[in-house]
Amino acid sequence: MAKIPYRTYLTEEEMPKQWYNLRADMKEQPDPYLNPAILQPLGRDDLLPIFCEELCAQEMNSTDRYIDIPEEVQSFYRIYRPSPLIRAYNLEKALDTPAKIYYQFEGNNTSGSHKLNSAAAQVYYAKQQGLKCLTTETGAGQWGTALSMACAHYGLDLTVYMVRVSYEQKPFRKAVIHTFGADIIPSPSETTEVGRAILKQHPGTGGSLGCAISEAVERAIHTDGCRYVLGSVLNQVLLHQSVIGLESRAAMEKIGEYPDIVIGCAGGGSNLGGLMAAFMKDKLDGTRPNTEFIAVEPASCPSLTRGRYAYDFCDTGHVAPLARMYTLGSDFMPSANHAGGLRYHGMSPVLSKLYHDGYMKAVAVEQTRVFDAAVQFARHETILPAPESAHAIRAAIDEALKCRESGEAKTILFGLTGTGYFDMNAYTSFLEGSMTDYIPTDEDLEKGFATLPTIG
Amino acid sequence: MAKIPYRTYLTEEEMPKQWYNLRADMKEQPDPYLNPAILQPLGRDDLLPIFCEELCAQEMNSTDRYIDIPEEVQSFYRIYRPSPLIRAYNLEKALDTPAKIYYQFEGNNTSGSHKLNSAAAQVYYAKQQGLKCLTTETGAGQWGTALSMACAHYGLDLTVYMVRVSYEQKPFRKAVIHTFGADIIPSPSETTEVGRAILKQHPGTGGSLGCAISEAVERAIHTDGCRYVLGSVLNQVLLHQSVIGLESRAAMEKIGEYPDIVIGCAGGGSNLGGLMAAFMKDKLDGTRPNTEFIAVEPASCPSLTRGRYAYDFCDTGHVAPLARMYTLGSDFMPSANHAGGLRYHGMSPVLSKLYHDGYMKAVAVEQTRVFDAAVQFARHETILPAPESAHAIRAAIDEALKCRESGEAKTILFGLTGTGYFDMNAYTSFLEGSMTDYIPTDEDLEKGFATLPTIG
Repeated sequence: MAKIPYRTYLTEEEMPKQWYNLRADMKEQPDPYLNPAILQPLGRDDLLPIFCEELCAQEMNSTDRYIDIPEEVQSFYRIYRPSPLIRAYNLEKALDTPAKIYYQFEGNNTSGSHKLNSAAAQVYYAKQQGLKCLTTETGAGQWGTALSMACAHYGLDLTVYMVRVSYEQKPFRKAVIHTFGADIIPSPSETTEVGRAILKQHPGTGGSLGCAISEAVERAIHTDGCRYVLGSVLNQVLLHQSVIGLESRAAMEKIGEYPDIVIGCAGGGSNLGGLMAAFMKDKLDGTRPNTEFIAVEPASCPSLTRGRYAYDFCDTGHVAPLARMYTLGSDFMPSANHAGGLRYHGMSPVLSKLYHDGYMKAVAVEQTRVFDAAVQFARHETILPAPESAHAIRAAIDEALKCRESGEAKTILFGLTGTGYFDMNAYTSFLEGSMTDYIPTDEDLEKGFATLPTIG
Repeated sequence: MAKIPYRTYLTEEEMPKQWYNLRADMKEQPDPYLNPAILQPLGRDDLLPIFCEELCAQEMNSTDRYIDIPEEVQSFYRIYRPSPLIRAYNLEKALDTPAKIYYQFEGNNTSGSHKLNSAAAQVYYAKQQGLKCLTTETGAGQWGTALSMACAHYGLDLTVYMVRVSYEQKPFRKAVIHTFGADIIPSPSETTEVGRAILKQHPGTGGSLGCAISEAVERAIHTDGCRYVLGSVLNQVLLHQSVIGLESRAAMEKIGEYPDIVIGCAGGGSNLGGLMAAFMKDKLDGTRPNTEFIAVEPASCPSLTRGRYAYDFCDTGHVAPLARMYTLGSDFMPSANHAGGLRYHGMSPVLSKLYHDGYMKAVAVEQTRVFDAAVQFARHETILPAPESAHAIRAAIDEALKCRESGEAKTILFGLTGTGYFDMNAYTSFLEGSMTDYIPTDEDLEKGFATLPTIG
C-alpha cells in the first residue's frame, strides 16, 4: 500500500455540499432554551429579535439530518477550504509511539481558526434577510476576526465587543479586525445599559465573554436592521462547523483510515462539536460504537469536568436565553488564563447532553502542560498552534504516550483549530518560566453555582 | 469546460523532485563573485569557511539544469507544501477586470513565508556535513523564523542577528523564534568586531541587513562547526526557491493556464527568482517569448529602478564577497519602511543580470499605495498579506486595471509570499492615516553610489 501522505486535501467536488445536523440522530434531545424574562421554554419567534430568521430556524431544527450549504457559502468556503488532514509523522517519531496521529488543520486562513466556517454562514443569512449590520462579542479575538472577514466579504457593518482584558493584551487582534473594516469596543463599556451596570458593580473589571455577549445582544436589539451573532455554544454554530468533521471523515476515507479517538478543545464547543459530528453519527447509529470522543478544557475553566448540568443564563447580563448545559455559573469570572477562547462559563447544550448521556469523555489540563505540548508540537510539526488548539494537542500526546506503554497502534484524530500568532505573550511567559497554573478551589466553584437560577 | 477551482493543489506525487537551476539556461552568466580582501574572482574554496560544502557547490554551479531535491528535504516540504495556486475570483470581481488573476500562496506555514523552502535545504546540507550550529541575519523576521523552524527539525543550534529596529518593533517575532529554540541578538551588537565598529561609528543606529550579515558571517567564521546561511540574494537560494515556480507552472498546467505576466516583490530576489524561474526557462528557450516579468520594489529602496549595475559588497562590514548587481551602495541606510524584508541595498546577481539584459521589468511603488492594495486584497481574498507580498499585489492590481481599460483578458500570476500577522503596527499606521511615503532624492542615492568600490 502506498504511504499515507502528510497532507490529504479533498478536491472541490469532494467538499461537503450539506451540513450535518447531529441532533437529528441523537437518541434524546437537549432540553429547550428558556426565555430569560419568564423562564419558560421559548419558540422560534422569541429568538427573532436577536438572530436572523434562517438562523432561528436552524437553531430549533432537530429533525432535518442534512441541510444544504447555500451555493454562496460554498463559494466562500472554497476561498480557504478544504482544510488539510495532516498525518503528524514527525510528532509520532518524536513520541516513539505506535499510534497514528492525524489532525485537521483549520488555521490556514487569516482569521487563524475554524471560526470562519460559521461566520460565513451567519453573515450570508443576515445579508439574505436584508440586514445592514451585526454585533458580536469576541474573547481571544478569533471569532471577531473571522466575522470581520465575512462582513467585509458580504458588505455588512459589524460592531465587535471585545473582552477588555483581551482588548488590552492583544492590540494586534484589534488591528486585524480594523483592517477588515469592523468597529471594536472594549467590554464592559459605557455604550450599553448592561455594560454600565457591570462597570458600576465591578469598576475596573477586565470583562468576560458572558458580559460581552450581553452588551452585543442589547446593542443588536436596539439597532434597526441589526442582529446579534455568536461564534460558539449554539446549535446553529455546531451545524455550520460540522463541515470540519465531514471533511475529516471524507479525507480519512480517501486514505483508508478511521479514528479510534477523536479529540477537540472545548470552550463553547464549536470546534469539537463540528469535528466530531460526522463521527458521532457512526457511534449513534451503531456502525462504529467504540469510537472515543474526548473534550479537552482548561483546568482553570472546567465546565464539563467540574461544572453542574443545569439551566443557566448564557450571558452575565441575563438578556440572552437560558440553556441547560454544563456550567460554572454565569457570574463565574475565569482567571487570566491565556486560552481566551476557552474561558466561557458554559458549554454547548448539544455537547453537554452527549457528555451527560455518556457518549463522550472530558479531561481538564493545566496550561503549563498545554504550552509544553504546544512548543513540542511546533518544533516537530512546524505549525505554531493557538493555545486553545494546544489543549487538544496535549490530550493527543497523552493518548499517544499511553499507546507507547500499551503497544496499541490506535488512530488518533484531533482538531488543530488555529494558529497562535497573536498569543506570543503567552508563549513568552511559558518560555521564560513565569507562567503559572490556576485551578479553582471547590469553594470558588460553589460561589459560581450559588448564582444558578432556580427553574420551575 | 469545468470552472477553474479557487485553489489548485498538486498531489504529493506531482510535487517537484528536482530544483531548477535557471543559470544553466541563461544566455550569459552573472559576473563572478569577488573575494573582499583582494577584489579578485573567488572560487568554491574561498566560500568554504562561510558556507557549507554542498551549498558552495550549488552556489557555483551554472551548468546542471536540474538538481535533485534530497529525499529528506522533500519530506520536509511535504509537511507544508504543496502551496496552493489560488484564483482571485473575488478580487477580479471587485476590480471589474477581464484579467484572470492567480497567486501562489506561500504563507501556509508558521514562518508565514516562502523562506522555509531554502531554510529546509540549507539546514539539511549543514547537518549532512556534521555541522552543529548556524548563524544568520533577519530583517522583518521571516527568514529568522523559517530558519529556526528548520533548525528545530534537524536539531542544529542557531544564532540570529536581527536588525535592531525590527527587533524592537517586533517583539512577537522574537518570541516565535525563541519558541523554536534559537538565540536572537539585536544587530549591531557588541558580540562581533564589526558590530562594535559600527556602533562606535553610528551610536544608537537601528541597524541594517547589510550590517547584520557582517556580524553573522564574522560569528560563523570564528565558531567551530559553524557556518553562515543567507535567506536571499544568493544563487543557491534562488535554486531552492525554484520549487515555487515549478509548482505554479505544474498547477497552472493542470487547469490549462499559462501566465502572460509574472509578478513578484523583490528585496534580495529570492521570491521572484523562485517564482519566475520555471517560466523564464520558457522565455529563454523561445517556447514562450512574450511572457512579461515584473519585479516590484519599494520606492524607498529602489535598487533595480534607480540603482547602479556594479560590483558591490554584499554587507556593510565588507567581510562577505562582492557581487555584480544592481545596488544602492552597501552603506545605503534605507528609511524606516515597513516592508523590512525589502530593505536590502542590493539585488540577486541572477535577477540583476536578467534585468540588465532586458528579460524582465521593474517598478517601484510607494508604501501607502502598497497598503491600500493590501487592505483591498485582504477584504476580498480574506488573506492578510505581508507588506512585502503586498508590493506584488499592488502591481497585479495595476496590471488588472490596465486590462479593464484595454479590455484584454490577460492571465496574471503573482507570488503571495507570506502573511502579515507580525506587521500590524504598519497596518494600524496606514489605517490611521499616519503612514507616509519616503522616496530618496537623487542626492541621497549619490551618497550611496559614492561608496561603491573601484574594481580592476
